[in-house]
Amino acid sequence: MRTTQQENDPTLLVKPRTPLTTSIWQHHHILDLDDFTPGEIELVFHIADAMKEVLSRPIKKVPTLRGKTIVNLFYEPSTRTRLSFELAAKNLSADVVNLSTSVSSVTKGESLVDTLITLQALGANIVVMRHPLSGAPYIATKYIAASIVNAGDGWHAHPTQALLDLYTIHEHKGSLKGLKAVIIGDIRHSRVARSNVWGLTTMGAEVTLCCPLTLLPSGLDKQHHHFPEVSIEPDIELALDGADVVMVLRLQLERQQSGLLPSIREYIQLYQLNEPRLTKAKPNAVVLHPGPINEGVEISPAVAHGQQSVINEQVTNGVAVRMALLYMLAGSQKQ
Amino acid sequence: MRTTQQENDPTLLVKPRTPLTTSIWQHHHILDLDDFTPGEIELVFHIADAMKEVLSRPIKKVPTLRGKTIVNLFYEPSTRTRLSFELAAKNLSADVVNLSTSVSSVTKGESLVDTLITLQALGANIVVMRHPLSGAPYIATKYIAASIVNAGDGWHAHPTQALLDLYTIHEHKGSLKGLKAVIIGDIRHSRVARSNVWGLTTMGAEVTLCCPLTLLPSGLDKQHHHFPEVSIEPDIELALDGADVVMVLRLQLERQQSGLLPSIREYIQLYQLNEPRLTKAKPNAVVLHPGPINEGVEISPAVAHGQQSVINEQVTNGVAVRMALLYMLAGSQKQ
Amino acid sequence: MRTTQQENDPTLLVKPRTPLTTSIWQHHHILDLDDFTPGEIELVFHIADAMKEVLSRPIKKVPTLRGKTIVNLFYEPSTRTRLSFELAAKNLSADVVNLSTSVSSVTKGESLVDTLITLQALGANIVVMRHPLSGAPYIATKYIAASIVNAGDGWHAHPTQALLDLYTIHEHKGSLKGLKAVIIGDIRHSRVARSNVWGLTTMGAEVTLCCPLTLLPSGLDKQHHHFPEVSIEPDIELALDGADVVMVLRLQLERQQSGLLPSIREYIQLYQLNEPRLTKAKPNAVVLHPGPINEGVEISPAVAHGQQSVINEQVTNGVAVRMALLYMLAGSQKQ
Repeated sequence: MRTTQQENDPTLLVKPRTPLTTSIWQHHHILDLDDFTPGEIELVFHIADAMKEVLSRPIKKVPTLRGKTIVNLFYEPSTRTRLSFELAAKNLSADVVNLSTSVSSVTKGESLVDTLITLQALGANIVVMRHPLSGAPYIATKYIAASIVNAGDGWHAHPTQALLDLYTIHEHKGSLKGLKAVIIGDIRHSRVARSNVWGLTTMGAEVTLCCPLTLLPSGLDKQHHHFPEVSIEPDIELALDGADVVMVLRLQLERQQSGLLPSIREYIQLYQLNEPRLTKAKPNAVVLHPGPINEGVEISPAVAHGQQSVINEQVTNGVAVRMALLYMLAGSQKQ
Repeated sequence: MRTTQQENDPTLLVKPRTPLTTSIWQHHHILDLDDFTPGEIELVFHIADAMKEVLSRPIKKVPTLRGKTIVNLFYEPSTRTRLSFELAAKNLSADVVNLSTSVSSVTKGESLVDTLITLQALGANIVVMRHPLSGAPYIATKYIAASIVNAGDGWHAHPTQALLDLYTIHEHKGSLKGLKAVIIGDIRHSRVARSNVWGLTTMGAEVTLCCPLTLLPSGLDKQHHHFPEVSIEPDIELALDGADVVMVLRLQLERQQSGLLPSIREYIQLYQLNEPRLTKAKPNAVVLHPGPINEGVEISPAVAHGQQSVINEQVTNGVAVRMALLYMLAGSQKQ
Repeated sequence: MRTTQQENDPTLLVKPRTPLTTSIWQHHHILDLDDFTPGEIELVFHIADAMKEVLSRPIKKVPTLRGKTIVNLFYEPSTRTRLSFELAAKNLSADVVNLSTSVSSVTKGESLVDTLITLQALGANIVVMRHPLSGAPYIATKYIAASIVNAGDGWHAHPTQALLDLYTIHEHKGSLKGLKAVIIGDIRHSRVARSNVWGLTTMGAEVTLCCPLTLLPSGLDKQHHHFPEVSIEPDIELALDGADVVMVLRLQLERQQSGLLPSIREYIQLYQLNEPRLTKAKPNAVVLHPGPINEGVEISPAVAHGQQSVINEQVTNGVAVRMALLYMLAGSQKQ
């Protein structure tokens, strides 16, 4: 007979709780990484380590969030992010309900606010929210006492993806300080890139953006623009030179119509991460991709499945990092 | 370390179980309120009070329905009612499965019966069912040993909505006896209104229906018609005069095509509940709406979010009332 | 207060585990029955008996698979099979996530492999998979360490349906050895029939296929074809003569366009199982159907709901058999 001793071992629960009683963790919501301190991000790493240990157990479940209700509110289709949050919540014994809706243009704002007020009244403790409108999770916080986790809002931010990326780099490199990180792809339309720029620079990495100039975020040149200092290098081989971290973005193939993107064929010629190009980076550089991959487009199969790829680790770490975040948000509600 | 002591405290479980061993509660199904006695409705209030206490705990979960299977069988789209039942069931530790289907005109009757027989064989204990056909839940009871909960059938009935409305009024007014309740809107097509008329009159309230005469239920004038005694007052200011309870129905905007409804503009002029009109009611009158609201149509924003509105309480109470009902049905199966 | 004593009774868990430590059970995946030995099938019966006892309890839930993640990955719509697996998993306290996807012709192979790799990285222990492509679950096993359960692949196999059919026959007949089993219907396009032919012949039953010759599997005449020895008898009355087991297949009405099928009217005249025809079988013959039934097409209402029908038992047994299989697969992972 299996006992529940392992689960009831208070070690896991006590250890990460200690820092929460200090003033390190200030977040009731997770909206983007632009307001995270290095200490907060390190705390996420620390608790994600503990969660990863839970995931390595034969019974990968702890009762930490029993009786808490987590709602996955997705206004855009998603498989992996939704599943990752659902499994993270279930591993913590929370109750999870999924609510997938399409946003009609007319009812957009109204139905979101209505839905949030209803979710609050139904007893939601944490709402994980994906919305096509940049800033929607910020609006959400004004209508709900529950914690909001931004699981992607328009082109704006995807902080939990960035945290799992940072955690994966941290696992391989020990520290992010002074690392050279290159982000390759359609930066302009990438919420993953934006949140990673905040996280990487906060942790002391140097960031180089590599893409056609048409795919840079607009307004990057203006002094007052709210964006960390980054380097821009459109030539992929120059950009990769000496890199510790290579982050490849998914090319939204449907974006080609926009006129901002050269032809796919030209994009592949100029920007695909393949083995010859990867040799420009440091030999122990890690390759990340938020998935799903367009194999043979933004990344060659050999690199995607090669020794330096940590793409599958990102998925596994995503569950641990999201467990850590859900745990910390639930803790913040008790204070 | 959290203990499970709170959960295992038998107080909650024993107290409400006592009345169940008496003959007060006779229901194996919940189909409508026309066969509920005042004692049964009071019993629902009593157990909902206990469930509301559970909802106020940090760990809002009791093991009462562990190992029971509850199926949400929805033949019409629904967000809030489905979620409310799903959370109610999970708070009681039941296993919940969702089954959402659209009804094609051809397979209507057949597929329902087939599905019910299958759900029974799969081990369903309670089937929560929404169906566009009035009376479908009654048919369902002939094919299944599990308890059926009507979560809305056509224009006919929505008894759990009415019970949560009654419970919310009861919380504010102490007793429903002698209260003047006004229901404003498209009564003819409202299953919420019908079930509330039964519940309110059973509990001794006086009901006034207020709407254009074309939107009254047909056959209301006939002596033999199966409907409780109500007053009819098409003038909203006269109807509201001295009211304790004001229940506003959602206007199904798509109904306008039917010819029964004046233009939306005229409807707003004649029937919108706004602040000047609400002053005709008693100063402590409560305003209910089953949601979702068409703000600015059947109700003004100021009233919907005003001091007298209990609309959000209705949503919260809905979870408690449904927990109570699921609990009592599971209890009735054990006898 | 209910105690958890019953759940924690190790008897159930110990008894079936004993055989697992022997070399009887060799499966890490369940793909089809063509590689099952009689001993393995009997082991499934044995453990399904224990699971059926669990299902008869007031609290039909055991903690056996707590902390295990089971994914229902369905590329074809399904209600009863998906629900059956979902309830089986929940009865064993596993965490279940549902992933229903439609397969676009372009992304077919790729998205399957991508999805499987992601599910593995997310921590899936068992993936229950339905796919329109015959052989897809075999491909899946090459990309995932988790156990794959084939819940139907194209026209190829549906092993858990066959096992629940065998179990139901076993319950009624004690042994399958020497029984005469007749399968009536569109054998060519039936994965249920194929898996049952393997299972029935493995257990020593004699199988007769009864259908229009156009609906026989192609290549059945060839010596080297991978298919057990069966009899073929297109005349339904001759086929039924002396049968112990009559298995009726669902007629895919949309198949009529293919030209392989006579008109529905002619099919009914020649192949519907009705009461007069059933008298040709042994008086205690059992009638099975995988469901959902086309009443009045492949089977008459009187037979479908008659004394000899075990169709509802099949559904109930399906939950028990799937609990047994999930339990054994989880056990095989621990070795």
